[in-house]
Amino acid sequence: MTSSDRFSEVGRRAILSALATLPMLLPVSALAQTAVTDPLPTWNDTATKKAIVTFVERVTKQGSPDFVPPAERIATFDNDGTLWAEQPNYFQLAFALDRVKTLAPQHPEWKDKEPFASLSKGDLKGALAGGEPAIFQIVTATHSGMTTEEFETIVRDWIATARHSTTGKPYTEMVYQPMLELLAHLRGNGFKTFIVSGGGIDFMRVFAEQLYGIPPEQIVGSSGKLNFELRDGKPVLVKLPELNFNDDKAGKPVGIEMHIGRRPILAFGNSDGDLQMLQWTATGSGARFMGLVHHTDAEREWAYDRTSSVGRLDKGLDEAKANNWTLASMKDDWKRVFPFEGK
Amino acid sequence: MTSSDRFSEVGRRAILSALATLPMLLPVSALAQTAVTDPLPTWNDTATKKAIVTFVERVTKQGSPDFVPPAERIATFDNDGTLWAEQPNYFQLAFALDRVKTLAPQHPEWKDKEPFASLSKGDLKGALAGGEPAIFQIVTATHSGMTTEEFETIVRDWIATARHSTTGKPYTEMVYQPMLELLAHLRGNGFKTFIVSGGGIDFMRVFAEQLYGIPPEQIVGSSGKLNFELRDGKPVLVKLPELNFNDDKAGKPVGIEMHIGRRPILAFGNSDGDLQMLQWTATGSGARFMGLVHHTDAEREWAYDRTSSVGRLDKGLDEAKANNWTLASMKDDWKRVFPFEGK
Repeated sequence: MTSSDRFSEVGRRAILSALATLPMLLPVSALAQTAVTDPLPTWNDTATKKAIVTFVERVTKQGSPDFVPPAERIATFDNDGTLWAEQPNYFQLAFALDRVKTLAPQHPEWKDKEPFASLSKGDLKGALAGGEPAIFQIVTATHSGMTTEEFETIVRDWIATARHSTTGKPYTEMVYQPMLELLAHLRGNGFKTFIVSGGGIDFMRVFAEQLYGIPPEQIVGSSGKLNFELRDGKPVLVKLPELNFNDDKAGKPVGIEMHIGRRPILAFGNSDGDLQMLQWTATGSGARFMGLVHHTDAEREWAYDRTSSVGRLDKGLDEAKANNWTLASMKDDWKRVFPFEGK
Repeated sequence: MTSSDRFSEVGRRAILSALATLPMLLPVSALAQTAVTDPLPTWNDTATKKAIVTFVERVTKQGSPDFVPPAERIATFDNDGTLWAEQPNYFQLAFALDRVKTLAPQHPEWKDKEPFASLSKGDLKGALAGGEPAIFQIVTATHSGMTTEEFETIVRDWIATARHSTTGKPYTEMVYQPMLELLAHLRGNGFKTFIVSGGGIDFMRVFAEQLYGIPPEQIVGSSGKLNFELRDGKPVLVKLPELNFNDDKAGKPVGIEMHIGRRPILAFGNSDGDLQMLQWTATGSGARFMGLVHHTDAEREWAYDRTSSVGRLDKGLDEAKANNWTLASMKDDWKRVFPFEGK
């Protein structure tokens, strides 16, 4: 993956601002001077911020009974609703729907075939009434039949131009500034940060390095099967219309084991899809941190939890309260939500 | 994964000796002084060594037309026959056969059931006459039905005590000293080193970090399916008797794409099982290095290629010659094979 220069200046500035908090970029002699700088400037001084800062101190302090060697400082983050927004629907679904529109002229048969017929009339609700099979059809129609390199180009072009339906912002700006700071703070303290998301692994890899500083090999996600082929003697990997792995719910600990092979000591999610990842993280020995972004801010973002169709947080909320997991309330714990806010 | 102190002192010394060549462990001011130290002391001064050293210089020199940013310096290595030996049979098969012996008393039904009946008589050839289905039965009988943590303990105990059938050495000593030096040399030059092997991902992870300096998240391998379960409220991952992924041949580029998401710029294998990984590596743009360990040393190791049943190198040898891939001849290019040799 090479750097794209298609990200907007605003997004770029947000990233640079988050990266600026990263002590690793500074010469060692400057570390002491920056120790007094707040590593999480857009987090309010609440119990949540204190829990994060204290945890990082405990596991990184040499000689502390909770000290964890750098190689074992594994932190996993959900993506949709945890690192970037997910309303009114997952951004990858918006990508798929845009692709259906683009591809429709090549598929006259879609006119009489659900869920595509409803989509062509702009009836998203009707299209999604078919439930998971309908979504699977939309995803396979838009995420298979091309090489991995072709798919990367399609996603790269889309994310450079697409705009969110209600904010009008590029999706790459709809990331949570406090979470960018948290990622940088963890990496600055020797953590290896991973995404563990139900989203498509190759979809996220297109932007995750530039957006979050997380390289492709540290992305765990859902995937379709791939087939290795020689085309005119040149090897390609073709995306097949067949599910390989569903990295959601009970799939998340499995994805973690397959890709990382170590149990995280910190995990952050926001929905019941993250529950098993948090349970898995909680069960390891030694100091642990389990966090949930709680969407409590209808003004600056969205307010939803137990009854939302997207990003439902119901069982997870009960378990968090029962087990003293950390709830990061957008409204109370975050000074700012998006990088563009208040600017 | 925690450090085990069960590795023998000889193996430990071999690793330390390889790690000592790693410039990253030295303060920056010492780098200039160590530049004259040979980073590959057990490689003879042949064209092979020159090809390796020159490639690393080309891709790491700032301003060079072949310069590759550190994040893209991905190097992938096969394991069996490339990093450690694989004769007279894959070491993981030896593990499985030892497990069959251990488990046999709990399985009276095996007495009349192939391949176990043959194995109980010590007839390995008869057992393997059943081909891949027989091997699959042996593998599932010994690699499933337990939790991931239980399996890790089983492998850890085995590798601490098992001895190679002809050398009598622990398997952890049957690693190739020149390849340990190569791994360290690459990491010292900002490469991220990965294993991409047909071997079991969770089998290799037990020893790869201590043996090769490669952490669990940089191991790509074959795997069985896992199931997340709550046992007495405690989450566990149970190994199922079902293949999840076969990381061999055309599976290797697929495994690389799934786990790493970037094309390697250097790949090293030793058999036709590595052919597609090398083709995939070769097709990327910019400087590339494709290498094969060629088993040419019947005295110090084994001599085999085109007709061997284990680690056959036939098509790969033709392609290597046609495309000027680098052949590392054990006999001609390596001063020493194993760490214990010549000591």
